[in-house]
Amino acid sequence: MSGLPFDPIDEAARQWRARWGDEPVAAMAAVTSVMRVEQILMARLNARLRPFDLTFPRYEALMLLHFSRAGSLPLGKMGDRLQVHRTSVTNIVDGLERTGLVRRTAHQRDRRSTLAEITQRGREVAEEATAVLNAERFATAPLGDAELAAITELLRGVRSGPA
Amino acid sequence: MSGLPFDPIDEAARQWRARWGDEPVAAMAAVTSVMRVEQILMARLNARLRPFDLTFPRYEALMLLHFSRAGSLPLGKMGDRLQVHRTSVTNIVDGLERTGLVRRTAHQRDRRSTLAEITQRGREVAEEATAVLNAERFATAPLGDAELAAITELLRGVRSGPA
Repeated sequence: MSGLPFDPIDEAARQWRARWGDEPVAAMAAVTSVMRVEQILMARLNARLRPFDLTFPRYEALMLLHFSRAGSLPLGKMGDRLQVHRTSVTNIVDGLERTGLVRRTAHQRDRRSTLAEITQRGREVAEEATAVLNAERFATAPLGDAELAAITELLRGVRSGPA
Repeated sequence: MSGLPFDPIDEAARQWRARWGDEPVAAMAAVTSVMRVEQILMARLNARLRPFDLTFPRYEALMLLHFSRAGSLPLGKMGDRLQVHRTSVTNIVDGLERTGLVRRTAHQRDRRSTLAEITQRGREVAEEATAVLNAERFATAPLGDAELAAITELLRGVRSGPA
């Protein structure tokens, strides 16, 4: 760890093993690693995206709209795809609307449903931000492609299970 | 994915490859997987910890104090170990203090520094909550120990790098 003379997760594993035996150690260490790496990646990505007035969650939502057939999606469907709650989608779309990358429109067939629609400016920013993230390999240094592919496959079991 | 007829990360990988080639796909898919799995694990763990008035970040902070030699640590040191910002540590300790698991005290030698100290009740809850999380393997189903160990090792490179 930067600035620490030891790895806090190794230290936690040592404490766990001494008190509760081997059995729970692998799960505790993996969960803590995922939490910590998510924080680190989120901080790195948000720093890269700041020039575009984006955060990583907003970037993900913008790309979903950019890829969608009509350039728009109901907010509920966006939540399903991003696996976030409706209130989070609302906040994310608020942020994208405030910066002019998305606008809200009424659903043509279902008036109770709200659509988020990507603007021309949103499409330009989606392309520019992606060029930056692609060039920086999504801030995944020092991991190589084989390690990244292994992580994706190992995590698949959790992703496809129940929340 | 629960409720979705396709895996949204596989779908994103397909879109990425079609537009920007193979090169950035592994990094994009791994980053998105880590983000998604963090959300899923956090939701599962918070649900298990709710009976103890804990969230997973509060639980981690409580365990750090439980393991510490004196049962107390300066807030700054807690932030270093948990790799979170000072404002997050303040919020976490506020929550633990409100529920009587931790109290703030003045540092004996450095009066400008604030310590968080675990209470007797805090130690009891730390043990009870850990018994639940250990028994449920930290909500990591369906992953086995070998997969969990592989995840911890693969993520080590990112954890030990710069934020």
